Amino acid sequence: MDGCRVAVIGATGAVGSALLRIMEERRFPVEELRLCASERSWGRKLAFDGREAMVERATPELLGEVDIVFIAAGSGVSREVAPRAVERGAFVVDKSSAFRMDPDVPLVAPEVNADDIAEHKGIVSTPNCSTTQLVLALKPLDDANRIARVVVDTYQSVSGTGAAAMDELRSQSGDVLAGETPRPSEYPHQIAFNVLPQVETFLDNGYTTEEMKMVEETRKIMRRPDLLVSATCARVPVMVSHSEAVHVEFEQPMTPASVREILSDARGVEVVDDPGASAYPMPIEAEGRDPVYVGRIRQDVSHPNGIAMWLVSDNLRKGAALNAVQIAEEALSKNLLQPKTEG
Amino acid sequence: MDGCRVAVIGATGAVGSALLRIMEERRFPVEELRLCASERSWGRKLAFDGREAMVERATPELLGEVDIVFIAAGSGVSREVAPRAVERGAFVVDKSSAFRMDPDVPLVAPEVNADDIAEHKGIVSTPNCSTTQLVLALKPLDDANRIARVVVDTYQSVSGTGAAAMDELRSQSGDVLAGETPRPSEYPHQIAFNVLPQVETFLDNGYTTEEMKMVEETRKIMRRPDLLVSATCARVPVMVSHSEAVHVEFEQPMTPASVREILSDARGVEVVDDPGASAYPMPIEAEGRDPVYVGRIRQDVSHPNGIAMWLVSDNLRKGAALNAVQIAEEALSKNLLQPKTEG
Repeated sequence: MDGCRVAVIGATGAVGSALLRIMEERRFPVEELRLCASERSWGRKLAFDGREAMVERATPELLGEVDIVFIAAGSGVSREVAPRAVERGAFVVDKSSAFRMDPDVPLVAPEVNADDIAEHKGIVSTPNCSTTQLVLALKPLDDANRIARVVVDTYQSVSGTGAAAMDELRSQSGDVLAGETPRPSEYPHQIAFNVLPQVETFLDNGYTTEEMKMVEETRKIMRRPDLLVSATCARVPVMVSHSEAVHVEFEQPMTPASVREILSDARGVEVVDDPGASAYPMPIEAEGRDPVYVGRIRQDVSHPNGIAMWLVSDNLRKGAALNAVQIAEEALSKNLLQPKTEG
Repeated sequence: MDGCRVAVIGATGAVGSALLRIMEERRFPVEELRLCASERSWGRKLAFDGREAMVERATPELLGEVDIVFIAAGSGVSREVAPRAVERGAFVVDKSSAFRMDPDVPLVAPEVNADDIAEHKGIVSTPNCSTTQLVLALKPLDDANRIARVVVDTYQSVSGTGAAAMDELRSQSGDVLAGETPRPSEYPHQIAFNVLPQVETFLDNGYTTEEMKMVEETRKIMRRPDLLVSATCARVPVMVSHSEAVHVEFEQPMTPASVREILSDARGVEVVDDPGASAYPMPIEAEGRDPVYVGRIRQDVSHPNGIAMWLVSDNLRKGAALNAVQIAEEALSKNLLQPKTEG
């Protein structure tokens, strides 16, 4: 086919906007584009590829008139919209956590497990943003030298929460500079000039949902159900890009030189590691770019088979929108939009 | 004695200012106060306890006229001033890293190893700010259940660099909000709305001096030369207080309840750990306060004997000035200002 009919649900959000830009950049074959969002945005016009499209309601009829549905809204929207779209024959790429751990839904970072897309029954999920950048770096290392355990602590930007949180960081920062006390709204506490050791909600085991996503999604994507992972996720006053301090324990000894060599050849990864020149990955430099940047690669002084490193990636692009578009590209190029019919 | 003669070297800096405030608050018995700083501040007057003192040059004569010298300037100043002060009979509390690993210099966080002060030969060093808050939480746990390994990743505020870095974060933040590109001066890169995975300078092993201080100073203070420690230190756009994500591996199983109980009784530590109410330690709440705050205490899902937790403390107070004043208080109360005479 020359192009396909695409719907974007959540088109006005931070990830939705990034999706539109990335489809333009990559010349994703859009024959017809339908934009959907919540009621307050109906009728609003958004630019796409030199044209304009009007934001409308995601009706069952609309979902039946497209080939691919990207859902970039909350889990609630995904749970409602995705099954309807699948019923009507659409291929759904879902950004939310709604279906990620469902055994019938492939969870895919294409550089790592593109082959899993073939197993879909209508829905493919994109991983949590913090997980995606982690697995892109871990998988090629695990292939070379089996990983036993990973400890990761994150420095996550507010854009992961959405456009309103970006506005809040901006306005709170202005308030603090003006000597005023900012009022929190998107977060339980002030985010400007502060760090919140909470991303999402707390579970009974003391971890947050975000932290346990990193544990469970990493295992699923890497097909390593036994992999030991621990995470502390913190929100920092940064607009875009998540940073991660990662401590990897391999089963066999591993040198920083090997890690650098493996990651230099890894798809979607770029090594930026020249400490002498103060060259290392940083949020402001990763913003708007596709790769997962890796630096500060060193022998972990506390573990005989340990490597420590520092990852940064644009959470709106590789962490969400870019990964979703890549999944659709894979499905299109391999003719996998329709689920395999079983025996 | 009723009071002692005190000199503060580096009185105009971020830590020097905190020192003066803390001596006032704690009614440190100052009979006479001499303030010293670099040439550009000579003649400037600073308030102390309702009086004023003029900033002057740290001459050898001045150093001979005081009982206690607090040095809160760079390592270079410490290397020059400390030996001169000791020669002239003063007791030196040094904030810099100049003498910390010197076997003849006790490295003291009083809640942990106050007894080590008695071994001094004129100089006692205060630990690195990131280390101090870590050992206050680790030591009581290590006493209860020996620690095998610690992985710690930091979220450090700019006040650790000094007053100029705080000005830089403020002005760069304003620039970014105004749509201008900030120019870095105190750091190799923009710090506003960014994260720098570099605190201090890089060593041949790929770690920074700050990271290796956390490794080596922790071992020295805890008298655990075999303790395995790894750290990644990052600078975040926060004014005051350092945060740390800490992953501890004990030799025996350890429950979060035991950790909470032990730390609730630990000197200098306060447990803030009610995730359901979004209560956890944060930089803006630790600022201006004395304790090391600990929260997010949980069983580490990746290690049978592991505990994960989150520490925050005011790096200018407990991380530097408060700890220095506490060392002087201990030395005074136990009559230890003069070194033990040997043999």
